[in-house]
Amino acid sequence: MKPAGYEDWLVVDGLELSRWDRETFSELRDGGVTCVHATCAFWETAAEALASVGSLLRTLRAHSDLVVPVRSVDDVLAAHAARRVGFLLGFQNASPFEDDLDLVGAFHELGVRVVQLTYNNQNLVGSSCYESRDSGLSRFGRLLVEELNRLGVLVDLSHVGDTTSLETIELSSAPVAVTHSNPRWFHDVARNKPDEVLRACAGRGGVVGACIYPLVLPGGAACSWSAFADMLLRLIDELGVEHVAVGTDFARKQPPELISWLRAGTWTREREDVPEPAWPEWLSSPRAFPDFAGRLLEAGLTEADTRLILGENWLRVLREVELGAGSR
Amino acid sequence: MKPAGYEDWLVVDGLELSRWDRETFSELRDGGVTCVHATCAFWETAAEALASVGSLLRTLRAHSDLVVPVRSVDDVLAAHAARRVGFLLGFQNASPFEDDLDLVGAFHELGVRVVQLTYNNQNLVGSSCYESRDSGLSRFGRLLVEELNRLGVLVDLSHVGDTTSLETIELSSAPVAVTHSNPRWFHDVARNKPDEVLRACAGRGGVVGACIYPLVLPGGAACSWSAFADMLLRLIDELGVEHVAVGTDFARKQPPELISWLRAGTWTREREDVPEPAWPEWLSSPRAFPDFAGRLLEAGLTEADTRLILGENWLRVLREVELGAGSR
Repeated sequence: MKPAGYEDWLVVDGLELSRWDRETFSELRDGGVTCVHATCAFWETAAEALASVGSLLRTLRAHSDLVVPVRSVDDVLAAHAARRVGFLLGFQNASPFEDDLDLVGAFHELGVRVVQLTYNNQNLVGSSCYESRDSGLSRFGRLLVEELNRLGVLVDLSHVGDTTSLETIELSSAPVAVTHSNPRWFHDVARNKPDEVLRACAGRGGVVGACIYPLVLPGGAACSWSAFADMLLRLIDELGVEHVAVGTDFARKQPPELISWLRAGTWTREREDVPEPAWPEWLSSPRAFPDFAGRLLEAGLTEADTRLILGENWLRVLREVELGAGSR
Repeated sequence: MKPAGYEDWLVVDGLELSRWDRETFSELRDGGVTCVHATCAFWETAAEALASVGSLLRTLRAHSDLVVPVRSVDDVLAAHAARRVGFLLGFQNASPFEDDLDLVGAFHELGVRVVQLTYNNQNLVGSSCYESRDSGLSRFGRLLVEELNRLGVLVDLSHVGDTTSLETIELSSAPVAVTHSNPRWFHDVARNKPDEVLRACAGRGGVVGACIYPLVLPGGAACSWSAFADMLLRLIDELGVEHVAVGTDFARKQPPELISWLRAGTWTREREDVPEPAWPEWLSSPRAFPDFAGRLLEAGLTEADTRLILGENWLRVLREVELGAGSR
């Protein structure tokens, strides 16, 4: 049940990769989402990511009564006041930077504000959680993290390998995030995070976004609300309420071909039959965010803590990353 | 002093990266070089490497009285009969393949026949000798080695990290090469190779090309002939004469900017002052190959062994790689 005054809450979804159109924009606005971090690149080169950013900006502008691109926390607050859903652009891979440090500044100029260091494979920067070994940050990787810090871009570790993650947290002068992963003790898969990474991330002021992609849930989309709520409460207990948030990984209206491409890209010829992801009945679309907020209150969280988890923690970490920019 | 009958020898230089023009082509022909493996990519993307290959092919065709592109050992023999220097195209990085297995076939179709898995940094495939850690072959790296085997492209490990090198030798169904490195016991730098890698390479039928780039020589270009000759003789003793060859790394007429770009690319903003490489007085240009051949005989090698080392070993390994193509 929607909490009283929910309309004024700052609700941020830490990551979505939906197919954006009037319907998926409406889901967000109906759900009272203030800001969504939207993925613009998975495997893309610089030129491909440039086109992807251009395409998303064009789509956003065609629906400017519902949505607006945002580049800063102030932009998010302005979007909220204007009842538009703010779109914060991000990459799930460092691939668009190719091997050129200057591409980081160029994409920052275009509004990219969140960058996951690796997607599912090793890249020029570091190792993915799906590689059998993780050599940590490469020579280029260390320079890239410094450049992201300097420009005020949030570093995301969700698909990143454990060693690369720990070295990034150690090196980064700004807090970093795990925008969309769960603890490995909740569901033991490579895409979820060991305690060491979660605690290090929180210890340096970062935020962990609990995720509802079926792959990272015990039992997949059938995962019960009580199991998920228990996980959230334990995670809050372990990391502190300022360091827990939500990143759904919603891939609304994406065709199976997109999900298949996310897995196999062009790097392998093996194709799995990938089903369209199903979502838990207790958070089946962005329209369910108000109800999800009510469930968190029922689970025993205070309104203040629920508001931190549903958005304010994301805005705090983004603000800290912004404030550090240029000062490094 | 040039050995009698040298004109009929099959002389192959395992790697050069000179600025190709009539003068550098003439150096090769005057030196009786039958075939040179010429680098077409260091840091390049697919599109950039495509242009680089196109540029070299155009330059070769403009001097077809001196040089000719070669794609096979038969092409090398035909070039030799026609008194042209055969140019075998290669990459010193897997970067032109980006993350797309199909680019391997496309570049093979264009004549690329040697591929070093990494240049100086970690890439999508594996680790370089200059990274502080080496995680071995990545998921994509394993598929790439299989694809190179399948197409009949020689895998080069010269700048590759030790763990990635050992895993490649283990995985590869064809012999592999170290086209231009020395043993680490000769000069202890990351670019030279530990015994374990050299012996594994030779043990699987591969070839190691001794190199005269100043960085890999004790004392740089001042390294004496007797020191180099002693190294060659010991290496022959350790690996067997069928597994030792020469890859000069000649960078004739390249401006300092090229050498600086080889080091720093666009991945770092740090620039070293890189001097134009100097070459040992006993092999100061490809014109000195006949004299170098005479020196090997004087050092006690038989003519048969000298001919293996100066070219026939390269042709044997290239033939084996060719023969394996398609059968995998």
